[in-house]
Amino acid sequence: MIQFKAPLRDINFLINDVFDYQTHYKNIPGGDEATPDMVDAIIGEAARFSEEVLSPLYQVGDEGCKFEDGQVTTPPGFKEAYQQYMEGGWQGMSAPVEYGGQGLPLSLGVIKSELIGTANWVWGMYPGLSLGAMNTIYLHGTEEQKQTFLVPLTEGRWTGTMCLTEPQCGTDLGQVKTKAEPNPDGSYNITGTKIFISSGEHDFTDNIVHIVLARLPDAPEGTKGISLFIVPKLNVNEDGSNGDANNVTCGSIEHKMGIHGSSTCVMNFDGSKGFLIGPENKGLHCMFTFMNTARLGTSIQGIGAAELSFQGALPYAKERRSMRSLSGKKSPDKVADALIVHPDVRRMLLTQKAIAEGGRAMLYYAATLADKMMASHAAGDMKGYEDWDDKLGFLTPIMKAGLTELGYEAANHGVQVYGGHGFIKEWGMEQIIRDTQIAKLYEGTTGVQALDLLGRKILLGRMKSFDDFRAVVNQFIKNHKNTKEMKPFIKQLKRAMIAWRLNTFRIAFKARKDRDMVGAASVDYLMYSCYIVMAFFWAKMADAAYTNLAEGKDVDFHKAKIQTAEFYYDRLLPRAKAHRKMMLKDPKSLMQMDEESFAFL
Amino acid sequence: MIQFKAPLRDINFLINDVFDYQTHYKNIPGGDEATPDMVDAIIGEAARFSEEVLSPLYQVGDEGCKFEDGQVTTPPGFKEAYQQYMEGGWQGMSAPVEYGGQGLPLSLGVIKSELIGTANWVWGMYPGLSLGAMNTIYLHGTEEQKQTFLVPLTEGRWTGTMCLTEPQCGTDLGQVKTKAEPNPDGSYNITGTKIFISSGEHDFTDNIVHIVLARLPDAPEGTKGISLFIVPKLNVNEDGSNGDANNVTCGSIEHKMGIHGSSTCVMNFDGSKGFLIGPENKGLHCMFTFMNTARLGTSIQGIGAAELSFQGALPYAKERRSMRSLSGKKSPDKVADALIVHPDVRRMLLTQKAIAEGGRAMLYYAATLADKMMASHAAGDMKGYEDWDDKLGFLTPIMKAGLTELGYEAANHGVQVYGGHGFIKEWGMEQIIRDTQIAKLYEGTTGVQALDLLGRKILLGRMKSFDDFRAVVNQFIKNHKNTKEMKPFIKQLKRAMIAWRLNTFRIAFKARKDRDMVGAASVDYLMYSCYIVMAFFWAKMADAAYTNLAEGKDVDFHKAKIQTAEFYYDRLLPRAKAHRKMMLKDPKSLMQMDEESFAFL
Repeated sequence: MIQFKAPLRDINFLINDVFDYQTHYKNIPGGDEATPDMVDAIIGEAARFSEEVLSPLYQVGDEGCKFEDGQVTTPPGFKEAYQQYMEGGWQGMSAPVEYGGQGLPLSLGVIKSELIGTANWVWGMYPGLSLGAMNTIYLHGTEEQKQTFLVPLTEGRWTGTMCLTEPQCGTDLGQVKTKAEPNPDGSYNITGTKIFISSGEHDFTDNIVHIVLARLPDAPEGTKGISLFIVPKLNVNEDGSNGDANNVTCGSIEHKMGIHGSSTCVMNFDGSKGFLIGPENKGLHCMFTFMNTARLGTSIQGIGAAELSFQGALPYAKERRSMRSLSGKKSPDKVADALIVHPDVRRMLLTQKAIAEGGRAMLYYAATLADKMMASHAAGDMKGYEDWDDKLGFLTPIMKAGLTELGYEAANHGVQVYGGHGFIKEWGMEQIIRDTQIAKLYEGTTGVQALDLLGRKILLGRMKSFDDFRAVVNQFIKNHKNTKEMKPFIKQLKRAMIAWRLNTFRIAFKARKDRDMVGAASVDYLMYSCYIVMAFFWAKMADAAYTNLAEGKDVDFHKAKIQTAEFYYDRLLPRAKAHRKMMLKDPKSLMQMDEESFAFL
Repeated sequence: MIQFKAPLRDINFLINDVFDYQTHYKNIPGGDEATPDMVDAIIGEAARFSEEVLSPLYQVGDEGCKFEDGQVTTPPGFKEAYQQYMEGGWQGMSAPVEYGGQGLPLSLGVIKSELIGTANWVWGMYPGLSLGAMNTIYLHGTEEQKQTFLVPLTEGRWTGTMCLTEPQCGTDLGQVKTKAEPNPDGSYNITGTKIFISSGEHDFTDNIVHIVLARLPDAPEGTKGISLFIVPKLNVNEDGSNGDANNVTCGSIEHKMGIHGSSTCVMNFDGSKGFLIGPENKGLHCMFTFMNTARLGTSIQGIGAAELSFQGALPYAKERRSMRSLSGKKSPDKVADALIVHPDVRRMLLTQKAIAEGGRAMLYYAATLADKMMASHAAGDMKGYEDWDDKLGFLTPIMKAGLTELGYEAANHGVQVYGGHGFIKEWGMEQIIRDTQIAKLYEGTTGVQALDLLGRKILLGRMKSFDDFRAVVNQFIKNHKNTKEMKPFIKQLKRAMIAWRLNTFRIAFKARKDRDMVGAASVDYLMYSCYIVMAFFWAKMADAAYTNLAEGKDVDFHKAKIQTAEFYYDRLLPRAKAHRKMMLKDPKSLMQMDEESFAFL
């Protein structure tokens, strides 16, 4: 049984010593509410809820949802935990006060989501999906739609979904076939089948608000003919109460590799009443407005997997005894030495630790960008909004794909530390692998994220957001050029930053002649970028740790932080070299083979 | 549903054009029987059995074994398939004629195992475990033991197991506690609990022959006090028929991440009658005699996972339509282009293909070494036997760990090609990941294999077997220094071979000062070695393909082979660089952290 413990010491280090959230909050709406005491209280309470309520349900959830007669029963305890969550007002924490929320900074909501998602990612998907629906309605809905749908979602009385995928298309949403036919009263009849709808049906709440992509009659083909609709499971009465059924039915739930406790539904809309949200045919645009924060959310799954798997592996590595250290017996009085004396076991544990903590640092930095983006939006400064969104948008594919790939790797190390026992369900270690597998697939696969980064964000964006991020890192490098203890980090980081820019130009240059260069380089480019970005955050953490050490604060903690940074630079950053070499290759060896020659069977 | 097709074209290319099995068979006992017609017939029949009988049971097997009242029921169809297998005489194919086998070369048995293991690895574990028991009895048993136990095992009427692991120890077998007390009749009473016993109980056969590690009274502590015993489930009557129960009971079966169709048993021995096999206290030595061929067997799981996942992903990549090629529409009349036009999808498919075919080439080469080892053994040439065993032993950790790690990666690519659908059980793609996970754990984890390679085979072995393998590669390089079309391969291979030797010396040198260097470098060293070894075999295949192309033979097949070699050198071999960089690092960043400082929770 894995018992999650909230990494509060690390969280405090990040928000106080590395990023200084209190100064940051001075310029953020709702930031004045986020006093140190308030932040402490919220994080402490989220930690308690995650440790005491959600963590014990993690392995229980693997038993899965049950489906009978169109009804989904979630695993034992899930519903009760949601009741507590709703009553605690957690869903609306970072939502606007005018629609029932508490208006606290988004970054604080990210920490809450991280704690929940690490303790029990699967349970966290239900409120997580609601958040997507809330954001969409907040940004694009009418005032009436907000009063009708956003308020109960914010209060957690209803939950929400995002209905994009259909049997014939996932990534390529231009192929969406679901139809929306206008009614005389201004509403629409929605008809079609959506698949892979997380939280599409469940027993948490009576009503569920579906955000559905569909086509109006005579809409243009492809992505330019898709509109967005709100389609509730139950029609809503004038007084806001739940009315009769709206012909939205769950046809079945999927049998999956993992996230068994999350209902993945086939949703049938059969002339269901829907309400257009945002302009006609601009559905994809509206859907993607908040994509960067959604993807930030998915990156948490990778960080959480690394943290949880590390927390599972560490005690085992200290307790289980096997063989002797090659450098001499460490526990001569015991039958054998503990696993943790073996260098390769340490390599796996430190890899998990470096990914979890490095990923968390990336997340907490990205969350400050999201805060600023929201602040601009709230102030009606659309230029500022777009600028911060771009800055965030540069990091999101790196984090979504990079951190879920690395989190998956970390989960694998967790199983390896256990040896054969890692393969046994009882320990819970293998479940983390199965649950994390999906993170590399949904919200855009790793390949799709990589194209988004290199094709859209970097090349189409003319390197603007790339340059913005580089400027941040280069400023850091400049600030520390004379800091003696930072030298080993700064030297390598500086070299990596120069190479990153140069290699990006190289790829851009090659891509002009051969458009397949972008796709050929993309995934290696993304991982290469991820290792460099994480190296920056490890340097930043080492710097903060050195500062605290100089003041004699919490020596063990800060020493370990610097040692983890050293491990990262020694044994993870060098992987970037292989990716660099591969991403610069000509696409020829990828593209030359005839489709018919891939196999001769 | 995945339907396996035997890669006969590739197998024929390897055994005829790359390794010339017919010439090789001239000097191998039983080789005269292995005429081209016979080889064709056997491979064809094994292919048919694998495709028609075993492949349809692959996904069925995921439903798992049932356990009730000490009895295990295997998945539907498993027992009937075994009946066919037994009647076909498959179990004894490469076993000695004098004990009921057909005496064909071991390498032919490897091809049979590969076909079975690719179609349905889980089913194949039952006869695979028997093979381990057979080898142990053949090498160390008395003539009476061979007549009593080996013959029915060879005929497949009984199956066998290897009972090593106990709750407190897996890798560290020195901790084994199971007791063996001598009886006046020369037999022993075996008492203890063994866990993770594959095929420990099932419904295929009435009797099961357990090979059990246990301690004699007053045996020395640790690994030097362990003896090996034959313990049948049912006592054997004088006439060889099954007698009464022998107090060997299955306490439960494990609930695992994958290989659900394989029974993983807790076995309780309660004064069960056992027979000493091999000398007292030499049990570990006897158990490990055949370890190299056993590990060769496990490496097949990695190759099979890559092949099966590739076969599952390829048709999907050709049929599923999503988005447009960045270099211009490829199917303008269709709603979108097929997945296979996208460079990154090709990268994943080609990675799977290169691993499957590269791994197969390594396997078929290693199988010739095993043949020669067996030939020396049969001729009573123990020096020759040990020499070939050493040559094979150098490759086995590289293949066992390297190919299972790469096979696991390939299985992951298969899921990625499917996108979200890969996560759904119905397609079977995710099952390959779950089933392959165990390959990195059992028969020695990747970490254990890496220590075996670097610590034992290379450093303790004074680089002898390393030099032997390098001589083979260097001869190939020398032979092709003037072959124009091979130049790109030879140039890179030569450079890699020089670096490999140099870096091995570097590590050896550092290890003298710091013993933790071995463990710190080991896994990176193993993967580094694996990429170089596979590069040799890809060069060898490219060479054979060029030769055939020059004669105008089967142009498409041989062109694709060369293109896959080019892909390997472009996009897989460069990974060795990152491993090289990491393996040469000082152990400091791994070893410096205090155990208490790994986490502050």
